[in-house]
Amino acid sequence: MKTLLLISHPEIEDSGSQQYLLQSLPSSAAITVRHLDTLYSDGKIDREKEQAMLLAHDRILFQFPFYWYSTPSLLKKWQDEVLTEDFAYGKQKNLTGKEFGLVISVGIKETEYQAGGREGFTVNELVAPLRALANKLDMQYVKPLIIYQFHYLSERDRMRLLIKYQQYLTRQHPDSLKKREDWLVEQVQETNRTTISTEGWFILEQALSIVEDHRLAIDELAMLLDAEGEDY
Amino acid sequence: MKTLLLISHPEIEDSGSQQYLLQSLPSSAAITVRHLDTLYSDGKIDREKEQAMLLAHDRILFQFPFYWYSTPSLLKKWQDEVLTEDFAYGKQKNLTGKEFGLVISVGIKETEYQAGGREGFTVNELVAPLRALANKLDMQYVKPLIIYQFHYLSERDRMRLLIKYQQYLTRQHPDSLKKREDWLVEQVQETNRTTISTEGWFILEQALSIVEDHRLAIDELAMLLDAEGEDY
Repeated sequence: MKTLLLISHPEIEDSGSQQYLLQSLPSSAAITVRHLDTLYSDGKIDREKEQAMLLAHDRILFQFPFYWYSTPSLLKKWQDEVLTEDFAYGKQKNLTGKEFGLVISVGIKETEYQAGGREGFTVNELVAPLRALANKLDMQYVKPLIIYQFHYLSERDRMRLLIKYQQYLTRQHPDSLKKREDWLVEQVQETNRTTISTEGWFILEQALSIVEDHRLAIDELAMLLDAEGEDY
Repeated sequence: MKTLLLISHPEIEDSGSQQYLLQSLPSSAAITVRHLDTLYSDGKIDREKEQAMLLAHDRILFQFPFYWYSTPSLLKKWQDEVLTEDFAYGKQKNLTGKEFGLVISVGIKETEYQAGGREGFTVNELVAPLRALANKLDMQYVKPLIIYQFHYLSERDRMRLLIKYQQYLTRQHPDSLKKREDWLVEQVQETNRTTISTEGWFILEQALSIVEDHRLAIDELAMLLDAEGEDY
């Protein structure tokens, strides 16, 4: 599973949330990060290059701040110029079956995004154009990761966000408890032991062993219930 | 009522629908037309100029082709750069009460824009970001004028579109039969007699006189029904 992360933010240097996410990007060969504003500061998008990038990845993610309830203009331009007829739709549909997800940072609190709230619409309603795009291209639309008011998040909530973000980038969708477990085990196995204290390592190993025990218990229960086919 | 028509279309010369609409623009002092791609071919938007334009008009219209279910990128840039905090929302809300409308040309037929249709969403759902924008700025959102598949329209339907378009640009919203009548009378009065044949002129005068008779009858009925306050 190779992920293409397309970031669009005209003022990324000044964005606390974007900097935080960027710093926590897993340095994995399976993730390609492209900041469109850096690549195309003159606004001239290299369509062939972008289309080749799309073909080479299985999951396409847009990461952007919610500007007027939508993508920033450069990411809009990217859509208009890269997702062309007979490449993305029409006679040839090269993106069929790939995953399409959104990482959106929003400056207003979540409860305002509903009828009666100050913004009047849910984020799900507001991203209808992007859902329609995924529909048109026969891509698999993945539940977005929406970050409301990053600046007000506590340190603990930022850590949670970081884990959700890393999972969003690398974990296979649709989500399940089993996949979250597998992801965790994999991450720990890839962790460099020398960067963690002996005590920290001990706690991690304990956590893993508990996860494994729980998995055994869940699998046994599932067998008893004859529900192996279900995705627990 | 002064109308500001902001047109965004990167290939306006090649667009049959845009050319048709442009040619039928009433040459009225009450309409200011600005083609953003011509004004800002370098992509650098003059924010102060644009904000002054907004202040000087009562009705703001976006006219654009539906690119990926949304505005073209330059019009998105215009939104992001012109509709700034403390001008459009926040401490100062300079656009409160102004009308906000959309003239959208769409390449796919109307029946595909619904759940189960190929596009999967209604245009009303897809323009949620623009409806949310009007909501945020306390502007009066006017029912959009949507032009489906201009190229397949018959000559007669194009004439109908032309009248709807001219009314959309100049007539006061919300719409009513009385306002459509007033608009018609005004248009005929402004028409240069020398450009129409004697026979054509006679027909127009007859039509007007019928409209006026009908109006009298409607007003009398309304008085009888004691429903003068209603907007017939």
